[in-house]
Amino acid sequence: MHVYNHRSNINLKRFVALKCSVYKSLRAIIKDADLYLICVSDAAIPGVVKQITDVVGSNLVLHTSGSTDLSVFHKLKINGGVLYPLQTFSMDAEVNWDTTPVLIEAIQPAMRRQLKNWALLFSKTIQYCNSKKRLAYHLNAVFVNNFVNALYSLSEIYCKTNNLNFRLLNPIIQSTVTKVNKYSPLKSQTGPAKRGDEVTMNKHLQLLKLQPIEKQIYLQLTELIKKQHGKL
Amino acid sequence: MHVYNHRSNINLKRFVALKCSVYKSLRAIIKDADLYLICVSDAAIPGVVKQITDVVGSNLVLHTSGSTDLSVFHKLKINGGVLYPLQTFSMDAEVNWDTTPVLIEAIQPAMRRQLKNWALLFSKTIQYCNSKKRLAYHLNAVFVNNFVNALYSLSEIYCKTNNLNFRLLNPIIQSTVTKVNKYSPLKSQTGPAKRGDEVTMNKHLQLLKLQPIEKQIYLQLTELIKKQHGKL
Repeated sequence: MHVYNHRSNINLKRFVALKCSVYKSLRAIIKDADLYLICVSDAAIPGVVKQITDVVGSNLVLHTSGSTDLSVFHKLKINGGVLYPLQTFSMDAEVNWDTTPVLIEAIQPAMRRQLKNWALLFSKTIQYCNSKKRLAYHLNAVFVNNFVNALYSLSEIYCKTNNLNFRLLNPIIQSTVTKVNKYSPLKSQTGPAKRGDEVTMNKHLQLLKLQPIEKQIYLQLTELIKKQHGKL
Repeated sequence: MHVYNHRSNINLKRFVALKCSVYKSLRAIIKDADLYLICVSDAAIPGVVKQITDVVGSNLVLHTSGSTDLSVFHKLKINGGVLYPLQTFSMDAEVNWDTTPVLIEAIQPAMRRQLKNWALLFSKTIQYCNSKKRLAYHLNAVFVNNFVNALYSLSEIYCKTNNLNFRLLNPIIQSTVTKVNKYSPLKSQTGPAKRGDEVTMNKHLQLLKLQPIEKQIYLQLTELIKKQHGKL
């Protein structure tokens, strides 16, 4: 496998360890690859596509972005496609690839089988999905991953500031996710907002009185729960 | 064990199955119990305390509320205390009690040992905690459980309305919680808000244009992430 990366020597070293050939310039890109995989930031995709168009010929070129339309390839008439893993990645956490859904899309229907076979190397859960739906999944991933994690961070900071032990919340965090993986979250909602328990909510708001953003988020999510349960 | 419950026959039947004696009136309450455990809604606690004061004598009476101050007992001069499991409960989900933190508090220091021994019947993780701190833990539980679940519900509803499969998000939901149980959520934050990727955020907001509350929550949580990462 050949890997091009002009930004980070550290990341290239990881690939060297995996016995890949690594390059720091796209100019060194080879012409006879079976597959070209573009794993760069969304904003950088069009530039990379442009640079490699003359080299890739009729071979498959895929990007891995949730929010970039397939049309990023269309204009340049290469055999573009998408291989988007609906998952969160970070350097220090293992990913269970078998269960990670991989959403795929190809410009040419004839490329679909080939694309599916590539995707099956990564995961057992493959789904065809157009750009519009993929963006919608990406939006939902922001809600259930980025925004959920922001609430965890809010709590982590609150605990640190108020001399509480954030780690005491691990079991309730775990229970919440265990439930959602089995049941409808809408049906298993609990808490003061769901019960309409204004006394408790006012006690909470009192604790947040010096934190305008956090207080606003408390009020807004309370309103969301009321709406979700027909109480608005 | 004697169980009093005036509201639900169904719940009483569960206790009968566990070989408890069940009663539908507090007037039938016995005088020689080792422990009186009040598990009612927060608003109902003062009334129950009042009703049982003459019966309980000097024996231990505990409530299990996260947001009710210990002073609910103080006025009535009974041996009050708190046994608050920092956990979420529902009829259909099993709870891992061993790891569930139980926050305890007693009016009389002399009762602390006895209270701790009772708490140890439930969990291995016992912590003394005053009412103010317990309320703060309760607030944090609302953020990491009730509000996180509300975001899951938002996504569940969005997926249903837009013909997406909510279950495809299970793996990313699971990864997010696996990470938070190991690492600092603040340090492992990812996503367009963290990156300052306005192009992607605008695409998302476009999808939410007909949902004012959801859009507002998107904007507010984006602002929170920017603040958490020094970008406001």
